[in-house]
Amino acid sequence: MDATFLMNSLWVMLGAILVIFMLGGFIMLEAGSTRMKNAGHIAGKTIFTFGLASLVFWAVGFGFIFGDNANFLVGLSNFFYSGAELEGLSLSSPVFFVFQLAFAGIAITIALGGFAERAKLSVYLIFTILFSAIVYPVVAHWIWGGGWLAEHGKQDFAGSTVVHLTGAMAALAATILLKPRIGKFNKDGSANNIYGHNQVYTALGVLILWVGWFGFNAGSTLSVEDGFFGFVALNTNLAAGAGAVAALIISWMVMGKSDVPTMLNGALAGLVAITASCAFVDTWASVVIGLVAGILVFYSVRFFEKRKIDDPIYALSVHGAAGIWGTLSTGFFATPELATVGKPGLFYGGGFEQLGVQFMGVAVSGLYAFAVSFIILAVAKKLMGGLRVTEEEEIMGLDLSEHGSYGYPEVFMAEENKRLSS
Amino acid sequence: MDATFLMNSLWVMLGAILVIFMLGGFIMLEAGSTRMKNAGHIAGKTIFTFGLASLVFWAVGFGFIFGDNANFLVGLSNFFYSGAELEGLSLSSPVFFVFQLAFAGIAITIALGGFAERAKLSVYLIFTILFSAIVYPVVAHWIWGGGWLAEHGKQDFAGSTVVHLTGAMAALAATILLKPRIGKFNKDGSANNIYGHNQVYTALGVLILWVGWFGFNAGSTLSVEDGFFGFVALNTNLAAGAGAVAALIISWMVMGKSDVPTMLNGALAGLVAITASCAFVDTWASVVIGLVAGILVFYSVRFFEKRKIDDPIYALSVHGAAGIWGTLSTGFFATPELATVGKPGLFYGGGFEQLGVQFMGVAVSGLYAFAVSFIILAVAKKLMGGLRVTEEEEIMGLDLSEHGSYGYPEVFMAEENKRLSS
Amino acid sequence: MDATFLMNSLWVMLGAILVIFMLGGFIMLEAGSTRMKNAGHIAGKTIFTFGLASLVFWAVGFGFIFGDNANFLVGLSNFFYSGAELEGLSLSSPVFFVFQLAFAGIAITIALGGFAERAKLSVYLIFTILFSAIVYPVVAHWIWGGGWLAEHGKQDFAGSTVVHLTGAMAALAATILLKPRIGKFNKDGSANNIYGHNQVYTALGVLILWVGWFGFNAGSTLSVEDGFFGFVALNTNLAAGAGAVAALIISWMVMGKSDVPTMLNGALAGLVAITASCAFVDTWASVVIGLVAGILVFYSVRFFEKRKIDDPIYALSVHGAAGIWGTLSTGFFATPELATVGKPGLFYGGGFEQLGVQFMGVAVSGLYAFAVSFIILAVAKKLMGGLRVTEEEEIMGLDLSEHGSYGYPEVFMAEENKRLSS
Repeated sequence: MDATFLMNSLWVMLGAILVIFMLGGFIMLEAGSTRMKNAGHIAGKTIFTFGLASLVFWAVGFGFIFGDNANFLVGLSNFFYSGAELEGLSLSSPVFFVFQLAFAGIAITIALGGFAERAKLSVYLIFTILFSAIVYPVVAHWIWGGGWLAEHGKQDFAGSTVVHLTGAMAALAATILLKPRIGKFNKDGSANNIYGHNQVYTALGVLILWVGWFGFNAGSTLSVEDGFFGFVALNTNLAAGAGAVAALIISWMVMGKSDVPTMLNGALAGLVAITASCAFVDTWASVVIGLVAGILVFYSVRFFEKRKIDDPIYALSVHGAAGIWGTLSTGFFATPELATVGKPGLFYGGGFEQLGVQFMGVAVSGLYAFAVSFIILAVAKKLMGGLRVTEEEEIMGLDLSEHGSYGYPEVFMAEENKRLSS
Repeated sequence: MDATFLMNSLWVMLGAILVIFMLGGFIMLEAGSTRMKNAGHIAGKTIFTFGLASLVFWAVGFGFIFGDNANFLVGLSNFFYSGAELEGLSLSSPVFFVFQLAFAGIAITIALGGFAERAKLSVYLIFTILFSAIVYPVVAHWIWGGGWLAEHGKQDFAGSTVVHLTGAMAALAATILLKPRIGKFNKDGSANNIYGHNQVYTALGVLILWVGWFGFNAGSTLSVEDGFFGFVALNTNLAAGAGAVAALIISWMVMGKSDVPTMLNGALAGLVAITASCAFVDTWASVVIGLVAGILVFYSVRFFEKRKIDDPIYALSVHGAAGIWGTLSTGFFATPELATVGKPGLFYGGGFEQLGVQFMGVAVSGLYAFAVSFIILAVAKKLMGGLRVTEEEEIMGLDLSEHGSYGYPEVFMAEENKRLSS
Repeated sequence: MDATFLMNSLWVMLGAILVIFMLGGFIMLEAGSTRMKNAGHIAGKTIFTFGLASLVFWAVGFGFIFGDNANFLVGLSNFFYSGAELEGLSLSSPVFFVFQLAFAGIAITIALGGFAERAKLSVYLIFTILFSAIVYPVVAHWIWGGGWLAEHGKQDFAGSTVVHLTGAMAALAATILLKPRIGKFNKDGSANNIYGHNQVYTALGVLILWVGWFGFNAGSTLSVEDGFFGFVALNTNLAAGAGAVAALIISWMVMGKSDVPTMLNGALAGLVAITASCAFVDTWASVVIGLVAGILVFYSVRFFEKRKIDDPIYALSVHGAAGIWGTLSTGFFATPELATVGKPGLFYGGGFEQLGVQFMGVAVSGLYAFAVSFIILAVAKKLMGGLRVTEEEEIMGLDLSEHGSYGYPEVFMAEENKRLSS
């Protein structure tokens, strides 16, 4: 068997494993960013939603993205994928499948960030199924499955739009329909801080995501050709570093102190932003893209808070705002040598053409993901008697209300025991 | 040098690293599933027992499994392995060694799950040495080292029997001899919940195990040939997802609420079950195997609890019951195309033959592991004046009794300070 | 393209990813080894210092180490590295760059261990920039970049000196200038235990480091040739295991109980020590090197404590003392077959020659790293009005003083609320 085929398979398998490991990053990031009474729920739901999304993706999602006989929306073959060889790949087909499955798992996980600390467990199940079946696959088909945006030369190397923006727009739909958490906003419209309970978790989560992103971005080469994946990894790392540094500095300058979650968001924003462009831009541009992302995420968080949109895990800013910026950035920075898809960017004499394609891709994909997610959740809200746990349950915490046991029993039961005995 | 040899080496090296990373999953799973007063001990002992098992495996374990001049029980060469080239491998011999060492490390870690929250530190040392020298290597030799079960065509691709069942049977011996933890069972025979202290740890642990399992199962191809490892990884992921979903649903149906640990156990049970069969069955069968495992683990936990067997980390159910089911499942689902070892299963016209071999393998291996572990521990109990810390020490916690310092000093010393000052 | 080139690239890319993952190990190790009030700070700073170090290394660090037109101190090309192909490599140049960047990130992280629980945030920024620009690159150039120690045949396969000792000497400079933490030493010179707050974090951190070390050491082959990386990984694992076992036993013998942090330090010391020698020594020698390291680290911690040097994360003992031992150990144990750099060791008839080179390398590198770090920090102390937060801030904790929010808000704000309401 051809050595290149095998090496490609090996590399993309490693990529898939790293992307699945990113779920561990989300477990820690999300648990750390929310309160103790919801921690077991938040951490545990990442496991079963990925499990469920895996089954849905196997049954229909993959076929919708990459199947033959495609219509405008989706492809239509390879359902209940058997592991059979697919045409046109220069790597093991099941490896390609697992890599794609991992991406779908990340997209739903980002989306569910918008549900945090108030949605019913049953809503997670319903939305995971429908998002993984008809939201994510459509956008992915358009851009990566040979759909109409691919034909327009839309550049989105590893998914600033396909994965991050799509997830963030679903999170936006959810957060609008769910309404803010109790206590987040005051009657006068001002916002309260609802602090996440564990910054060590958050930091570890971000580091795991950073590491996993090498699979996400560099794995998206789908090939070991020329060792080019190393260049993609380099750009990825530089943007992450720049994002962290920029967020640290801007928050220090504006607030007088630099808080840890903001700086961590900067690193993530750099990673999200470089995801579209990592294979198309020079190293200096990666630094610039990361720096802008780090500043952007700081202001984006303030923007949403002012609009009374409650975004507990910053999904809208980190994956949405930075996802948009990242997608547009290739329209500025894509170089003639590296732009193997689409055209070079504005700064390299490519004019506004690619920027226009990028903008259209963002707008249409974002709109689709938002609208369909909104409809799904609005219907569910009607049929299920609401998306949200009761006020009493929310105050009690979702660990107890949705799962019947505390995530931190010794903390809460000690308090309970004290209360009972006093 | 031959490119395939090098690629095989690279792939299996990655597999070994992932399997060793699974120890991090066990650290978090076990610490999260037990109480705060034992957390430092539980987490820390995983490191030194792996260290000790590594030395024992290097000294004798590997030679017993794969050495030449084998008798009925074990092989007899390659002790204190020097890194020398071994015959018959198409990958780097030291890579193969490290991969095998990692498996031995997982087996002892599973076994020690049965000791949780009550065994003396010295017992961990003794049992780690003897299990790694004479329990695990014998079963591994029989099935993977060319022993008599291999000659019968026993199918156990990555170790549902060799690793998981063997570990679980040792845990069973331990849990019987150690007796239940103080407070687990009431005088009327009813059981109390002793909640693990941190579900975030548990969830992260399960995710790490899930990720590591790609090394465990797909790495067991020992080869990059045809990119087949991707198919193994796909089956592995599907079974894990199915296990999580099944456990979630069955516990919801039966209990009215789905608790997080049960759902996490479902994912693990899916992984354990598919370990034997991941290379031999179709993707749909992997889903079925995972679903059954998820349901099985739920009922198994209740079964052991009713029998007044205290299994703090669910080793008996997750690794034992699911390990048995996984081993038997190939007797049902192994396809004619994929069954490169043994015969096709019952559902593919293979009749009961392979099922019989699988059953025999489970019975003999399980019995051997249980009996020898039981004897080791019974003798140790006699010689060491008991396996268990005193009642006072157990109540105080093993962090303090066995190591002299708290795992969470600020939590416990704050309480202590309060008690002293009131 | 040549398959070996691609396989080398793939292997070293995996190595780089694993080394960057080690930062997650440091996050957990350091957070676990310090107090709750500093946890968010300690965890978070690892992210932004790595981000900042990445940018500095990209701008100048790499060029100083490996650039052309070298003078005695550094090379002078490849600044603001573009991803261009470098001469003399048989792997992808950007992959090599990312691998080297990861090492620089580990070095600064080790160094900053000496700043724990008392340095100002601004000092982290300044020192990260200068250490990554002019401390680490010089030593790395001397030994790995073709500098004068390389010409003398200095053996340091993966950086016991270049990374660990350099980091530890910077930590020593910092800890001397910063002075001990409040409450560490009594007026009579005796030391108090300032317990780290979470041993589960510490254990997970050590396991992640252990796993990452396969990238660190075996990745340093920079090649898949002969599958030799497997042998390096084997030696690495044996030394880690031996270190853990030795530290467990020596602390048990001396103290009557074996505490978890000591045993974990033993594993790390084994890993640090084998870093220099992993490619040059036999497997039995790896075991010996690890055993000695495990004992050494136990006594080293006591030595520094007696000298009233406060080393919160044991950087001086784990990375310093074990780094020196590891570097010297090749002078004893390097075999004629494996010593591809330098000469065989004393025990293989090589006489004292190699030992002398190793000693000189340790002395000069350690002195350089200490002296320049000391000067940087002494100047910074003058210019910045001190390196250390105020006494009040230190007692309050750096999470609040340096970042304006608690790492564990529910713990501290609950206490605050109680205090306010009583």
